[in-house]
Amino acid sequence: MQVYLIGSGPFDPEFFKGYVERQKVAHNDSETAFVGVDLGAKQLLDMNFPIDLAVGDFDSIEDKVYQQVAKKAASIEKLEPMKDETDTEHALGSVADLYPNARYHLFGMLGGRVDHLLSNLWLIYQERFASMIDRVHLVEENNAVSFLRPGQHQVDRLKEMKYLSFVAMTPITDLTLKNVVYPLDNYQMSTPLALISNEFLPGQNTMKIAFSNGLILAIQARD
Amino acid sequence: MQVYLIGSGPFDPEFFKGYVERQKVAHNDSETAFVGVDLGAKQLLDMNFPIDLAVGDFDSIEDKVYQQVAKKAASIEKLEPMKDETDTEHALGSVADLYPNARYHLFGMLGGRVDHLLSNLWLIYQERFASMIDRVHLVEENNAVSFLRPGQHQVDRLKEMKYLSFVAMTPITDLTLKNVVYPLDNYQMSTPLALISNEFLPGQNTMKIAFSNGLILAIQARD
Repeated sequence: MQVYLIGSGPFDPEFFKGYVERQKVAHNDSETAFVGVDLGAKQLLDMNFPIDLAVGDFDSIEDKVYQQVAKKAASIEKLEPMKDETDTEHALGSVADLYPNARYHLFGMLGGRVDHLLSNLWLIYQERFASMIDRVHLVEENNAVSFLRPGQHQVDRLKEMKYLSFVAMTPITDLTLKNVVYPLDNYQMSTPLALISNEFLPGQNTMKIAFSNGLILAIQARD
Repeated sequence: MQVYLIGSGPFDPEFFKGYVERQKVAHNDSETAFVGVDLGAKQLLDMNFPIDLAVGDFDSIEDKVYQQVAKKAASIEKLEPMKDETDTEHALGSVADLYPNARYHLFGMLGGRVDHLLSNLWLIYQERFASMIDRVHLVEENNAVSFLRPGQHQVDRLKEMKYLSFVAMTPITDLTLKNVVYPLDNYQMSTPLALISNEFLPGQNTMKIAFSNGLILAIQARD
């Protein structure tokens, strides 16, 4: 199952529509759910997608739009404006309960305010999301971020992207990168490094990464 | 002295011009240097600012533009395309030598590719920049990031911004925030948290932050 969770940040609706279609084909899986977080619920309305769940305090949405969202949404969770977690954190907890074992594609998370962007990336540090974080992908038309915990992973090329970067969120032990232009073999990092602008090998659509300790963001990007 | 270092990312030239003027007044300091990193040198040309130093491999600039940059720049450092540090890291090392004790304002660092953005923020982890990092500010019209090392700091309100966020880059001990809407007193963080959407107290143009161990980004932002 593929879950699409839309946040408040900007992204290209046409890219989103194409991405949803490509995921359906790539995973041979037409089961989907669409979740709108705050302004993201309005973005689903505007794109004429279904709203399986709307989550947020909806402070930034005018009442008329909120009524439209409430009418279309199969389910709605209205949050208090003052709370100890962000709307995105709350929504991710909800989809983990509703749609366990799905792949989660989060849009509207990477543009706009830098503090919002970092708050979204900092999900990787939270133990409560540990069991699902490898299945969370933050995407927009020029950037796609995946979260990696220790172990062995395969990263598949997104054909629209050019660069492949690995950003360490902690010190890292035993980092190995295979099938890329700049491979590594059992590399140790005592402080977090951003290894940017690596690339898949020509003609290869997949690569392997392994590490023993730490947390890493895998980012595919284009200029 | 105020040093303006322009990278390859997008920012609003009009905002930049106003910011330079406001810094001059705020610090009663008309001594400036303008440094262009790669495509940033072209951005200085386009804005008709002087180029005290141009740094980069200039791979993304056509030869005609490079000749214009070389003609206008007081000094130029042409780097190899393949290297172990980013152009921004190299440029920051150069300005530290050329203009020690200055305040460094970096533009074109926060938009565009997410891996580039993170690479710029990851400067905070590098010991070679430790002595200057508190004087480095990454700025564009909607976001301003400062780097904080352990100790006591005063953060001054940028009047165009609304939100004040503190993003921990490591575990943090003894975090105290004063003169903000959501203060903290000796708060301990065992994993890095993004404390976003705090605000200066109404009518107050400055706040205090102190911590004993760790690294923190202070971000002022607006929607």
